[in-house]
Amino acid sequence: MKKHTVILQPSGRRGQVDEGTSLRAAARELGVEIESICAENATCGKCLILVEEGRFEKYNIHSRRENLSPVGAEEQAYFARRPKLLKDKGWEVGQVRLSCQARVLGDVLINVPEESRGNKQIIRKSARERAIEVKPAIRKYYVALTPPNLERPIADWERLARELETTIALVRRGEENLPRWFDLTVDYQCLRTLSSTLREAKWNVTVSVWRDREVIAVQPGYVEDSYGAAVDIGSTTVALYLCNLRTGELLAAESEMNPQIVYGEDVMSRIQYTIGHKDGLEKLHKAILATLNKLLKLAAKTAQIKPDEILEVVLVGNTTMHHLLLNLHPKDLGLAPFVPAIHSSVDIKARELGLQINPSGNVHVLPTIASFVGADTSGMLLAEEPHMQDENWLLIDVGTNAELVLGNRQRLVCTSTPTGPALEGAHVEYGMRAAPGAIERVQIDEKTLEPRYKIVGEEEWNTGKAKGICGSAVIDAVAELFRVGIIDSRGRFTSGQKSDRVREGENGWEYVIARAEETSIGRDIPITQKDVRQIQLAKAALFTAARTLLNQTGLQSPDKIILAGGFGSYIDKEKAMLIGLIPDCELERVYAVGNAAGDGARIALLNVEKRDEIDSVTRGVERLELPADPEFQNQFMLAMNFPHMSEPFEHIAHLIPNRQADPMAKKFMK
Amino acid sequence: MKKHTVILQPSGRRGQVDEGTSLRAAARELGVEIESICAENATCGKCLILVEEGRFEKYNIHSRRENLSPVGAEEQAYFARRPKLLKDKGWEVGQVRLSCQARVLGDVLINVPEESRGNKQIIRKSARERAIEVKPAIRKYYVALTPPNLERPIADWERLARELETTIALVRRGEENLPRWFDLTVDYQCLRTLSSTLREAKWNVTVSVWRDREVIAVQPGYVEDSYGAAVDIGSTTVALYLCNLRTGELLAAESEMNPQIVYGEDVMSRIQYTIGHKDGLEKLHKAILATLNKLLKLAAKTAQIKPDEILEVVLVGNTTMHHLLLNLHPKDLGLAPFVPAIHSSVDIKARELGLQINPSGNVHVLPTIASFVGADTSGMLLAEEPHMQDENWLLIDVGTNAELVLGNRQRLVCTSTPTGPALEGAHVEYGMRAAPGAIERVQIDEKTLEPRYKIVGEEEWNTGKAKGICGSAVIDAVAELFRVGIIDSRGRFTSGQKSDRVREGENGWEYVIARAEETSIGRDIPITQKDVRQIQLAKAALFTAARTLLNQTGLQSPDKIILAGGFGSYIDKEKAMLIGLIPDCELERVYAVGNAAGDGARIALLNVEKRDEIDSVTRGVERLELPADPEFQNQFMLAMNFPHMSEPFEHIAHLIPNRQADPMAKKFMK
Repeated sequence: MKKHTVILQPSGRRGQVDEGTSLRAAARELGVEIESICAENATCGKCLILVEEGRFEKYNIHSRRENLSPVGAEEQAYFARRPKLLKDKGWEVGQVRLSCQARVLGDVLINVPEESRGNKQIIRKSARERAIEVKPAIRKYYVALTPPNLERPIADWERLARELETTIALVRRGEENLPRWFDLTVDYQCLRTLSSTLREAKWNVTVSVWRDREVIAVQPGYVEDSYGAAVDIGSTTVALYLCNLRTGELLAAESEMNPQIVYGEDVMSRIQYTIGHKDGLEKLHKAILATLNKLLKLAAKTAQIKPDEILEVVLVGNTTMHHLLLNLHPKDLGLAPFVPAIHSSVDIKARELGLQINPSGNVHVLPTIASFVGADTSGMLLAEEPHMQDENWLLIDVGTNAELVLGNRQRLVCTSTPTGPALEGAHVEYGMRAAPGAIERVQIDEKTLEPRYKIVGEEEWNTGKAKGICGSAVIDAVAELFRVGIIDSRGRFTSGQKSDRVREGENGWEYVIARAEETSIGRDIPITQKDVRQIQLAKAALFTAARTLLNQTGLQSPDKIILAGGFGSYIDKEKAMLIGLIPDCELERVYAVGNAAGDGARIALLNVEKRDEIDSVTRGVERLELPADPEFQNQFMLAMNFPHMSEPFEHIAHLIPNRQADPMAKKFMK
Repeated sequence: MKKHTVILQPSGRRGQVDEGTSLRAAARELGVEIESICAENATCGKCLILVEEGRFEKYNIHSRRENLSPVGAEEQAYFARRPKLLKDKGWEVGQVRLSCQARVLGDVLINVPEESRGNKQIIRKSARERAIEVKPAIRKYYVALTPPNLERPIADWERLARELETTIALVRRGEENLPRWFDLTVDYQCLRTLSSTLREAKWNVTVSVWRDREVIAVQPGYVEDSYGAAVDIGSTTVALYLCNLRTGELLAAESEMNPQIVYGEDVMSRIQYTIGHKDGLEKLHKAILATLNKLLKLAAKTAQIKPDEILEVVLVGNTTMHHLLLNLHPKDLGLAPFVPAIHSSVDIKARELGLQINPSGNVHVLPTIASFVGADTSGMLLAEEPHMQDENWLLIDVGTNAELVLGNRQRLVCTSTPTGPALEGAHVEYGMRAAPGAIERVQIDEKTLEPRYKIVGEEEWNTGKAKGICGSAVIDAVAELFRVGIIDSRGRFTSGQKSDRVREGENGWEYVIARAEETSIGRDIPITQKDVRQIQLAKAALFTAARTLLNQTGLQSPDKIILAGGFGSYIDKEKAMLIGLIPDCELERVYAVGNAAGDGARIALLNVEKRDEIDSVTRGVERLELPADPEFQNQFMLAMNFPHMSEPFEHIAHLIPNRQADPMAKKFMK
């Protein structure tokens, strides 16, 4: 058989193909995927490409539109229906072709425009930039059915299913992981409207297939896009991302306070509420559902789509949020041995849960890993992929509770520890959330002992009126107090400081950051001895958890530290290390990655294979229960010191004033 | 390794097994399945057997209880909890053993009582007697879980799933079609109560697994039995059979009129109702659901179980009943080309349909085959198994519509034809249902032309007061009128009859079966010329359908005719053949099998493999659409004659008076 050269831009892929091969098939042979949704029927136009004409000396070919088969009637008809497209782009038919129709008769150089390229990717920033291949659970196929007649009055579903088989086979020819046709089923609610939709649509419909196995929607005519939402249910904030499932594009991001907060600030108090009130679970479940439905509606409005067009939702959240979402009673999470109802990921119909998207749509909840290592941690793992690394990474998601995962492709160990609310600015004398008026940064001059501070919402330092201190500033303040020597390595205020900011207040020693006249509350805002103790307890808990994981895997320190969650983004890495909140490590190797859990939800939404991956990864994560570790108390005592009673903390050692060995250390060391 | 002889009664199976083999394992090696549900933990007692002691010369062994391992503590404990069992049966421990515990140390002869035998069977009567192996979709497993503690706080579902794996593997060791463990899932509503059930039950629960893949119920403690219902939704009558899914036993049979009858007598008028009334479908759907729920409740009461213990329902019905049950709009069944929404069998959760059994239970609806060949025909095929035969069987389900299937293991062809209501006694001048007062049998003396008749509810002939004529008597009467020469082969009343019972009435000629004084209505009850014409039309339609199927498969006549449905049981086979209602065939090879559709539903309920079988069989059935057959009109005209214008009808030829070739026949024959 005669062969011709085909060159594909911008990828630069090239090779020889048999005469008569369709361009789309030729591209696949050469490793370039071109989209299609209509089973190569010249209907969808998703496979459109451009012929570059001229002599290309570099490749020694003469590319001409005549080297492709002539434009046939169906292809002509397709372009005739789109005069605006041709005019806007300045294309003429012949130059622009449908690659499913055009056959190779001679050498050609082809340009595959962005929108025609298959296997779309989205780029996300993380500890490293990485591309997510868009492989959604839902794929759409356009089919034009032969209407039934007396000779062939086969049932509507079987008529559709048989045609779908052919279409899917053509559209996905050559792909790996081809679907198992014989298992194709139809969702019951979708079946209920199938017959009328087919007839209203005059037998031309677009079918949405979930995971290659279940038809979940049938829409009249040709429809290109499907939509899905990724949701991170935090104890405080619920964030929802609405995406185009074909392109991966983010169409809307909406967030709202978690309404359950009125039933309890933290997860434990919400669990208590469900135990103490007969209708407690129902109230908390309905509250989060209402918020999710509100966010879905808002996002759909922003994206100018109908909520019914949303065909899937992927959710993450800590174990308690996971249980309350799924209407599973969390009482056993509140009592030792703190057992969740389920670890495995859950797939249920939106209608069964009451989520107001397409009733046949699927709700996928990522797996939980351990008692307090929830689906949010699964999302973080999916976003950061420690299981793909050779290096040992330590991932920390800090909140009232901290979840930690350490390891690499060989082994992952996780644990969790309560850190108390101090790190988030709560239970600190003048603590508050990172809202306008909150001091978010603090520096102290080591000579004058005078502070500088920055307030949320202000551009400049030392401007604005302070209302309180948020978590990041509390850490800053404690680190600075230690660095300038106002408090010692045991966290005690040292005597004889030459500054009136250091004083004995009502509740013991304190350091005034903002004087009354600089505040909007008309009172001095200090950091107190008690506040320092709170931070010590929190950081000792977190560090001990990290140390236990490190010891478990035989490591002195991790190769990289990844701080997930809002908290990680706000804190000053150097100061966090100075107080020993995180283990010693090169500072450039400490990353704050923001809402990794939410990112993980988006990844699982856009790439269905990632769901299977995280199911498998989480099943293999070892769970370490801290109270079960006999060394825990000793390690905790050692970690109470700034930065630590027995560890060198080389990377911030130069900042530590008058460093000397603490004689108490021996008592707690093996 | 040392070997010993094990003999199993009553099967007589025997062989040598390795010393130390458990009796249950030994039995399986020798081809005898012994029940178990507790993973061989000496808990369930389902594997109990008896040791027969003594010398058995025939086998040359000396069977002694000492030839089994001693009764251990757990087995002892099991029997200690059941003093009544031992007392009632007169058994002593040692003689009676748990076969999962007793190990072979010497020769033994064992008696396996009925209740311990696995692979239970139920016997049903049909065209031939056959045994149905009980292999339900739902299997129960008892598991005793280790409660969680701080060292191993794994989630409840995973704790259960892992233990279940072990249990199922032990219980079903050696069986074919072993489940795919890794696919085990849990129904969402079942998951919701899992944690509390496990704790209330102190971690000892019985788990019901559907189709080896989904956990659908978790009950506290040890529970042996599951229940399921098989339902035949007829246009007129709904029949429900409640069965024990372990033993196959029928526990209750309940029936009720189909409440949809108030919206239309036949399927077409009900379809019209859904087209003409906006809420028509909803009304008809809710009506049948209400009746099903009533029957389920009644049956549960009869069987003294809770409706919640019913874990599965299998349903059959004609295509319209199928659609109305599933809330699928039947409007396209009412208009050419008469297309159903779906052929494939349907599985949906009871809660989704609104059936009041266990909400996690499954509803299985058998497949439909063609426009008017519904799930009831699938049930009939499952009950009669023409697809297992070498002979060609013709199956006919007669009602207002008749469904016919012809063929054997090589090929099955089906069709349907409207027969009109005449065969059921409707639209006949004095026609009525087969209720008290209805004449059900008629004979006419060929000399005197005097009739004898039998009335429903009367023991003796010619006693009681007649109210009308039911379908079987209309056929009898027409056949007798033909046999004695009152009507000719074209169905016309012949002139010059010497009986005042043959007379010209208001609407033409008629024959009086019961005189006014013999009736409860005070009027003569005749068969009229018009009635004869009705029967001619009905029988011509049915015969033509059968002839078309026979021609399609190149057969002159079937090897066996099977009449399903109530109608088939009431008619006189010889008379039906005499008027040419059914094709010519040896009379002894015509069988009436009663409610074969309902039997099929029961078979599918009790043996899950039969569901896959019928799915596959129905997919292969060829559908013949009669109006599409050009020969149809000619065949129909030929079939209007008694018994037929051109076919010899050898098996009843001796009954036909003055038989001679009808010159008209040539006109219609090829």
